[in-house]
Amino acid sequence: MNKNIPQPTIVRLCSIYRLLCGLEKEGVKNVSSTELEGITGVPSHTIRKDISFIGEIGDTGKGYEVLKLKTHILNNLGLNRERKACIVGLGRLGSALMQWPLLAEGEFRIVAGFDSNINKVETIKTAISVFLSHEIPEVVKRMGIEMGIIAVPPARAQEVADQLMDAGIQGIVNCAPIIIKPTSSDCFVRNIDIAGELRILSVMMEMKDIK
Amino acid sequence: MNKNIPQPTIVRLCSIYRLLCGLEKEGVKNVSSTELEGITGVPSHTIRKDISFIGEIGDTGKGYEVLKLKTHILNNLGLNRERKACIVGLGRLGSALMQWPLLAEGEFRIVAGFDSNINKVETIKTAISVFLSHEIPEVVKRMGIEMGIIAVPPARAQEVADQLMDAGIQGIVNCAPIIIKPTSSDCFVRNIDIAGELRILSVMMEMKDIK
Repeated sequence: MNKNIPQPTIVRLCSIYRLLCGLEKEGVKNVSSTELEGITGVPSHTIRKDISFIGEIGDTGKGYEVLKLKTHILNNLGLNRERKACIVGLGRLGSALMQWPLLAEGEFRIVAGFDSNINKVETIKTAISVFLSHEIPEVVKRMGIEMGIIAVPPARAQEVADQLMDAGIQGIVNCAPIIIKPTSSDCFVRNIDIAGELRILSVMMEMKDIK
Repeated sequence: MNKNIPQPTIVRLCSIYRLLCGLEKEGVKNVSSTELEGITGVPSHTIRKDISFIGEIGDTGKGYEVLKLKTHILNNLGLNRERKACIVGLGRLGSALMQWPLLAEGEFRIVAGFDSNINKVETIKTAISVFLSHEIPEVVKRMGIEMGIIAVPPARAQEVADQLMDAGIQGIVNCAPIIIKPTSSDCFVRNIDIAGELRILSVMMEMKDIK
């Protein structure tokens, strides 16, 4: 496996992977880098270069074989191993995420939920095990949880992130509308921010209106 | 207003704007581009260049004035006008989003929710007006809705996006785990994908493990 793949390439390869899963379901057998450009908006030469990072797999006259390229990305990015994840914060958003169809092809499994409110932990109806937040260190180690999703209010998000990192969590998806600072160099953080996406759209719309 | 701001600059300026809102709440008066680099991970020279796109505002010895820079971004990106948004899909995720504290400083207001299930529309408890999906064209026009958030299952997401675009919606945040194709050139789409973020983290963790 190539260890020196730049982060933007990783992000684009993951996006192509998702796309290939969709094409496979639709029964599409081949796809060219030009067609991938049409769907993703990423230039075809960038796509070809991204794919070349994970080894040789030719875009022949008929394009890439969908199943072959998908499997190639899966194996070369190490996605062929299930990782366990937990959700912290079982309010409306956290509860919704526990039931959300995240579980694509056995890549991830939500195995635990945490909340600081004992009433919530005792009354929530879910097939997934739930615990109090102070149990994070013990449960994360015992269950072998590698990733965490943060769905607490913004004021508590950094504190929860610190708890998860102290417990040895290596990857965090933060859904609270603040930027989480990764205080451990062993942990990666991705921030999801719906208000931020609306803001970006708003600016793009504003720019278009003026032109 | 500068109309030719590249999209990556827009995305970074929006991220800086959010950060400045947080710093203002914490009572921080000044921040340097080097400090902004420390928080965002974006190189300070890129940050200075991004800010220069929206006109002159000096990073003096003491750094930028937080309030001044925030207001400067707000006015120059056209964020000083409230935009109305709707949510389509009132399942667990959509209902959660209706109550999520999206409403930052009067930038956005969720004014309507839509679902194709009449039982859901009739029984949901919310202060926001809810309608059946086939009412999208009429309600969007009547209420002056400019943006839409899609929270339906993946199989229905493109169809809903097409409905929103036909109704004149100019900006879509898609939370369904598929890539939405903007079939109208008048509409911008941002895709939010939690499974995708977990996948990116997974690859970053895998690369680190191997090194």
